[in-house]
Amino acid sequence: MTRSFSAVRQVRRPQGEPRREDFEFVTEPLTGPGDGQVLVENIYLSVDPYMRELMDSGDWAKGAGLEGRALGRVIESKAAALPIGTIVFHRHGWCTHAVLGEADVRVVTPVDGVPLSAFLGVLGGTGLTAYVGLTRVARLQPGEDLFVSAAAGAVGSAAGQIARLLHAGRVIGSAGSAAKVEHLTTRLGFDAAFDHRDGPIRASLAKAAPEGIDVYFDNVGGDHLAAAIDVLRQHGRIAWCGAVAQYNNLDDPPAAPHNLFVIVGKAIRLEGFLVRDHGDAREEFERFLVPHVRSGRITVDETVADGFPTIVDAFLGMLRGENIGRTLVRVTPE
Amino acid sequence: MTRSFSAVRQVRRPQGEPRREDFEFVTEPLTGPGDGQVLVENIYLSVDPYMRELMDSGDWAKGAGLEGRALGRVIESKAAALPIGTIVFHRHGWCTHAVLGEADVRVVTPVDGVPLSAFLGVLGGTGLTAYVGLTRVARLQPGEDLFVSAAAGAVGSAAGQIARLLHAGRVIGSAGSAAKVEHLTTRLGFDAAFDHRDGPIRASLAKAAPEGIDVYFDNVGGDHLAAAIDVLRQHGRIAWCGAVAQYNNLDDPPAAPHNLFVIVGKAIRLEGFLVRDHGDAREEFERFLVPHVRSGRITVDETVADGFPTIVDAFLGMLRGENIGRTLVRVTPE
Repeated sequence: MTRSFSAVRQVRRPQGEPRREDFEFVTEPLTGPGDGQVLVENIYLSVDPYMRELMDSGDWAKGAGLEGRALGRVIESKAAALPIGTIVFHRHGWCTHAVLGEADVRVVTPVDGVPLSAFLGVLGGTGLTAYVGLTRVARLQPGEDLFVSAAAGAVGSAAGQIARLLHAGRVIGSAGSAAKVEHLTTRLGFDAAFDHRDGPIRASLAKAAPEGIDVYFDNVGGDHLAAAIDVLRQHGRIAWCGAVAQYNNLDDPPAAPHNLFVIVGKAIRLEGFLVRDHGDAREEFERFLVPHVRSGRITVDETVADGFPTIVDAFLGMLRGENIGRTLVRVTPE
Repeated sequence: MTRSFSAVRQVRRPQGEPRREDFEFVTEPLTGPGDGQVLVENIYLSVDPYMRELMDSGDWAKGAGLEGRALGRVIESKAAALPIGTIVFHRHGWCTHAVLGEADVRVVTPVDGVPLSAFLGVLGGTGLTAYVGLTRVARLQPGEDLFVSAAAGAVGSAAGQIARLLHAGRVIGSAGSAAKVEHLTTRLGFDAAFDHRDGPIRASLAKAAPEGIDVYFDNVGGDHLAAAIDVLRQHGRIAWCGAVAQYNNLDDPPAAPHNLFVIVGKAIRLEGFLVRDHGDAREEFERFLVPHVRSGRITVDETVADGFPTIVDAFLGMLRGENIGRTLVRVTPE
């Protein structure tokens, strides 16, 4: 009996906003795992903004598999450390099944009372990014005031909420629509928020933080960074968060802030960071955050589309900003 | 008997390069110290580039005293902690004598075999700036490669030499003339140096550091900073050194580097610092450096002008770049 699996391939480079016709669904024969490998059935796939950049990149090849973060279950195993039933995280998304080596996966230990999907979001790289940015990079102290840009995004909303759990002082966020701003203050516990399209960011931030800020969690650079440098107090810190993919292929990088030299007189620390450098913080992070996810003190924003065939539409909808929070596709029940 | 002392006053704002006519020597009556005060006879006065900026600043007032770092000897005391003969550091320079409170001075303990003048230079704020920039801010590790801008300047030459004593890998400097470049490599122990006026800094730095650098000790910002960001390795650090006076009154701040966003992908830390925040490092610093000054492993670059009447010419000569190293005026013998 020949088995098969479904996958999505990119068939051309999108011109501007991607369209359905840029992708195709394919069915391919499914081989069993070789020695040291496992066959994984995917449960959740994540579709993320950074994928749009990759579709333009020099590495692009027609018909190649698409990068994507996924959670799946081992259904056949020739790897002793990964018995059947193990839940794993991996990066071979946009497909229903994948044959993977031990080095390609990270074991995820499900927790009672926590939806598995959280391990692709607030308990995954997203939350870990927010956590290490606040604790290791910015070294946020209790009572310190924080500003987060792109605060309604996956990392930003985690950063704001985790800062609250770390006993930050005022938590201020910026976002790109009135609805998102309202979501920040009414649902996510931000003390103040503003729409960065409503006027000069410098003025909006100074109004939201009249006494200044201690830490800026930067997801965007550019004008936001300049405004934060102006408003930061002496010895302020900036954790500049980056997804490699976002910055590797940048034709139009964010402008450098005109006031960068102010970081000298204010003795500000500006530090770029990549979550991949902080895998050793994961255990501490999960110990810290799992109780808060279970208790509901953390709001997990996610939109779940049902069934693998929905993935292209889910991706396009995410790019159009139709969803709040992370967009996931449920391939098969947990 | 009325006693008197000599001082220099600024009588007008310099237009461009200062001239002798912008200053006048005055003789004023010398009062004795009040309770808790001491009368200090100055031994060494330092004239520094930052003073030029202050002469334009909003605080400027005709006939006001000029800021200046000084070493002097207590010759009358009504402060128990500062007996006659105590050597003190203070900031009321450009005069032969000063009445000062306990809070205005810092006691300096002379060391056998170390010229007192070193405490205004490599053993003073200059050296401390270099030391904390390397150890506390950049956290330079043995074997790491370093680039220093304005490396023939007081802070830069200390940074390069101290880095060598901290067992840095390659130490590379930039300076503004061929003579200074030669001084760096032949006298100060730099492994490589270049004249930043010889071509694009990015190209000169890449040539001097073909395998990259780990730490950039930044004294200038602008194009040097952009070049360093390009050449820094993953997890590089930048210690951006500032004299407050240099940056507070800046009409023409250094341009922001166009490639600032690169610090995200490289996870670079860019940190501004002010030596005044690191006074608690002074004891550790002196313990570390004094043996090297005494043994001659540190080259102390200084030009000493003899006699208080030389101070204006010494200052003007320093601004014209006539001297290598710090310019001091010896008011009275040690």
